[in-house]
Amino acid sequence: MKLPIRAAVLASPNYPFVPIDAPVKLDQNEAAEDFPASLKALVLERLGREKWHRYTDLNAETLCAAIARYEGWSPSGVVVTTGSNVLISLLIQLAALDKSVVTVTPNFSLYGLDAKLLGAALTEVPLRSDLTVDMDGVIAATKAKGNAAAHAGGVVYLPQPHAPTGSILAASELQRVAEISGEWLVVIDEAYHQFAGTSSATLARSCPNVLILRTFSKAWGLAGLRLGYALASDEVARHLRKLVPPFAISVMQQIAAEVALSNPGYMRERVERTIRERERIALALRQHPTWEVYASAANFLLIRTPDAARASEQLLQAGILVRRQDAYSSLAGCIRVTVGTPEENDLFLRAAGL
Amino acid sequence: MKLPIRAAVLASPNYPFVPIDAPVKLDQNEAAEDFPASLKALVLERLGREKWHRYTDLNAETLCAAIARYEGWSPSGVVVTTGSNVLISLLIQLAALDKSVVTVTPNFSLYGLDAKLLGAALTEVPLRSDLTVDMDGVIAATKAKGNAAAHAGGVVYLPQPHAPTGSILAASELQRVAEISGEWLVVIDEAYHQFAGTSSATLARSCPNVLILRTFSKAWGLAGLRLGYALASDEVARHLRKLVPPFAISVMQQIAAEVALSNPGYMRERVERTIRERERIALALRQHPTWEVYASAANFLLIRTPDAARASEQLLQAGILVRRQDAYSSLAGCIRVTVGTPEENDLFLRAAGL
Repeated sequence: MKLPIRAAVLASPNYPFVPIDAPVKLDQNEAAEDFPASLKALVLERLGREKWHRYTDLNAETLCAAIARYEGWSPSGVVVTTGSNVLISLLIQLAALDKSVVTVTPNFSLYGLDAKLLGAALTEVPLRSDLTVDMDGVIAATKAKGNAAAHAGGVVYLPQPHAPTGSILAASELQRVAEISGEWLVVIDEAYHQFAGTSSATLARSCPNVLILRTFSKAWGLAGLRLGYALASDEVARHLRKLVPPFAISVMQQIAAEVALSNPGYMRERVERTIRERERIALALRQHPTWEVYASAANFLLIRTPDAARASEQLLQAGILVRRQDAYSSLAGCIRVTVGTPEENDLFLRAAGL
Repeated sequence: MKLPIRAAVLASPNYPFVPIDAPVKLDQNEAAEDFPASLKALVLERLGREKWHRYTDLNAETLCAAIARYEGWSPSGVVVTTGSNVLISLLIQLAALDKSVVTVTPNFSLYGLDAKLLGAALTEVPLRSDLTVDMDGVIAATKAKGNAAAHAGGVVYLPQPHAPTGSILAASELQRVAEISGEWLVVIDEAYHQFAGTSSATLARSCPNVLILRTFSKAWGLAGLRLGYALASDEVARHLRKLVPPFAISVMQQIAAEVALSNPGYMRERVERTIRERERIALALRQHPTWEVYASAANFLLIRTPDAARASEQLLQAGILVRRQDAYSSLAGCIRVTVGTPEENDLFLRAAGL
């Protein structure tokens, strides 16, 4: 029997992820440590006093206000969803259905997957040979598409820092892409920005077609919470909110995020430790006879080895799970390793023969 | 400055909801009572032992298995999302983008809103004058669209029981719509099914183009949890899952739902009490000099009054919040009242002058 399913969905692959159990988990760029026990207790205590049978705020207004205070942003410009990956699809629905998505490759796979699922025209501009973003290529792609009336405009997705390389773009490069035609929404995914010390907030504040994505899944140590948000102009946010399901954010998510935002000290301290550990691992890896490590501004390192299958298998034998990246031809031999706790990083370096 | 936003989104209204504070909240069809304190304690205790900094399962596999056991369904046919309202949009993305959505009006507003936001052609078949679903009209609408190549097929949304009337369709009527062309996905929204004692599971099991939506927000008393799911054929579920963001369900949502599913006794007991209370209120309302109550199989009652503004204001003066429905011309004078606790229902009847 023919199924009533769109051809684009039928043709689309599943999200590429196969769970593997290992004692040392350095494969998903999660925080090295759990959310602090004292804050967990505070969340659970507050949660116990809440009513669970009532719908939450229509647009999580209280949480948006807390995020706005923390970020120094207009509360009307904050849109919160159950993970920033939800926003990747919603932003295509906002601005790119029947139009175009432009991004780079290799990259976080969801930009391209969602574009294909929703039937937007997709252009993926290859990274340069040094694995940095080819901004001339990105800007050219928006102009090429802009000439075809059917695909005029859409969404440009740029991660800052970039994953899986950890590279960062100069502010002047982001300024250039922000100045392209107003037919394009420029989305800067700042999932890892705390580890880079970068922020596109000033740019987004001056350019209403620039929107920033942030998440509680990385530096905040709350990947299990599933919460992310957009910082946008009030006008863009007002329309984006129409695409977020009503009452989207659970009472648990609201409370945990509010507790985290009221206690950012733990996050800042851990970010500093992660940066120190990242630099320590990178330095040690430079002594490796055959592996090459790329400079990273995130909480992970991209490493080119002679054979990604062999390298990841060698690490897994030592109980360490990393992520292979060699499905991309430009990342032949590459693995991506999350910065773990100092003890985990020691185990990793030892397993790497250092 | 022109914003890079699709015309359909710019033209779309916000979700129609204005929060009002009142001591007795009978406006959102939530459960009358909170999730049981003993189960809350169990959830909080389990939650305290979980890691919050790790991503959850890619597709909430453990929770899907628990739902499958409870529903007697194939685990591969269960798709869980952060609220069944999320699925309303995802199913349009699955089967109706550039095609059609057929539903009835009045109805839960999100079917139509999401169709418009995503640019699907929308046909809303009016209820008959007695406010029951015009199934001939629904089936005719799928055939009319089916003749236009551009809009062949899509999604039919039917609630069972229907909101805001509380009416139910005969199984034979649902069978008729299930037998329309395989170009259509027939979605039966069973948000309130426990209060009706109805289930389309047998129908959906025999027809792979029929899909059921269920939620933890109503009978389970977990509206603040934001969790719902689809019961579908394995094949439809496999493709629908591609549209659900990876790692979508938070650790909190998974644990709370698993605890609820392992302790369904409280839910069944409360459903019985709600049904008894619904019938008691309906009977009492028949004595009202000017109000007319419709038979309901859900946890709410639709009441036609001479003036919905006056009736809801009169109730609000007594501290009781209900939902006006008179924005629909066929529901002139109508209000919708959730069945509350026995005490709340007494207050409501007194405020209604009974």
